[in-house]
Amino acid sequence: MKISEATLKRLTQIFRTLSRMIRFEQFDESISSAQLGDLIGVPSHTVRKDISCLGEIGSSGRGYDVVKLHGFLAQELGLATPKKAAVIGIGKIGSALIEYGRFGNSGFDVVAGFDSDVNRIEAMKSDVPLYPAYDIEEIVRREKIELAFLTVTADGAIRSLERLIRGGVKGVVNFSPLILKSDEIHIRNVDLTGELTLLSAMINFGGLTASEE
Amino acid sequence: MKISEATLKRLTQIFRTLSRMIRFEQFDESISSAQLGDLIGVPSHTVRKDISCLGEIGSSGRGYDVVKLHGFLAQELGLATPKKAAVIGIGKIGSALIEYGRFGNSGFDVVAGFDSDVNRIEAMKSDVPLYPAYDIEEIVRREKIELAFLTVTADGAIRSLERLIRGGVKGVVNFSPLILKSDEIHIRNVDLTGELTLLSAMINFGGLTASEE
Repeated sequence: MKISEATLKRLTQIFRTLSRMIRFEQFDESISSAQLGDLIGVPSHTVRKDISCLGEIGSSGRGYDVVKLHGFLAQELGLATPKKAAVIGIGKIGSALIEYGRFGNSGFDVVAGFDSDVNRIEAMKSDVPLYPAYDIEEIVRREKIELAFLTVTADGAIRSLERLIRGGVKGVVNFSPLILKSDEIHIRNVDLTGELTLLSAMINFGGLTASEE
Repeated sequence: MKISEATLKRLTQIFRTLSRMIRFEQFDESISSAQLGDLIGVPSHTVRKDISCLGEIGSSGRGYDVVKLHGFLAQELGLATPKKAAVIGIGKIGSALIEYGRFGNSGFDVVAGFDSDVNRIEAMKSDVPLYPAYDIEEIVRREKIELAFLTVTADGAIRSLERLIRGGVKGVVNFSPLILKSDEIHIRNVDLTGELTLLSAMINFGGLTASEE
């Protein structure tokens, strides 16, 4: 099935909103598409259209059954079972990611950390096993790791990505300064410096037009 | 002047691409809109339209003068002088942001860190002065801090945001688990957990349609 990134983004937002409601036990039995739309900032018809992309789930006059919709999204989005993840580069951001570990309810399980600096690996205390970077391919394959967080410098980014792809990783969240692209796997580029520069420019302009092109 | 967020995002990408070229001395005298478009992944006419939003800058048959365009963008986007920034919450991510300090060429200067845990402040070594969270408003006002990075938990996010706004901050990059909105200042929500969940869902679907709605 093909689905747009925008739809998938909204569906994961709905999933996470419902997860929070359930975790904190703050929900009624059912929720309307208008309420869901308010929570993620889109109109109700977009919510209904997005959910219907995944297939049939009944909704009564009052809306969706909260627990049922949450389970349906978990199943259809592949978030029901945690995926194994690795952190590449255990500097400050990498260590923070390892420490967060399971990322609450987001279906992740960090099972390995890698760094090119063997001294740093030996000096670090961690509940997660740490390995030298040249072992990436082997460990990823052996542990069936599906996701990786790349928190290395621009110099190391491409080589690490190649090792991850050869090992069989399916997705990478890239925090390195390089914008990475791949035809083989999914990459999310999280450009922290870019966010800061954009924010600075936004401040400079004061008002932005609301509409996107 | 009103300008869309999408245009501003592309213009800051162009600016940062040119900054890197100049820093590493890897550039020809001029660059075409098609080359710029390739680098940031949009068509050449979008590049020309975006740049023309900022006003007149001459382009010869060969394209834009690299150094001149860089200076023009720095000026027009307000990135020529560094803006003072604060980090709220000095856990792992907060410490990483403080350590990055000046964020290379992105026009930032972290001048203060804040945390609600006074013991943590006293235990930390940092080149940047650290203060208790209840001093946010006063220090932000006194130091004329324009930007803040919010790396606190969901519990502390709204109170910190209120203090920052009262102190006169103009923009916030929000790493807390809450999605924050404000009518008064600019907020960029950087949702790390959301990126991971989205990536996981993308892997599940294999192919996404290229087009966005």
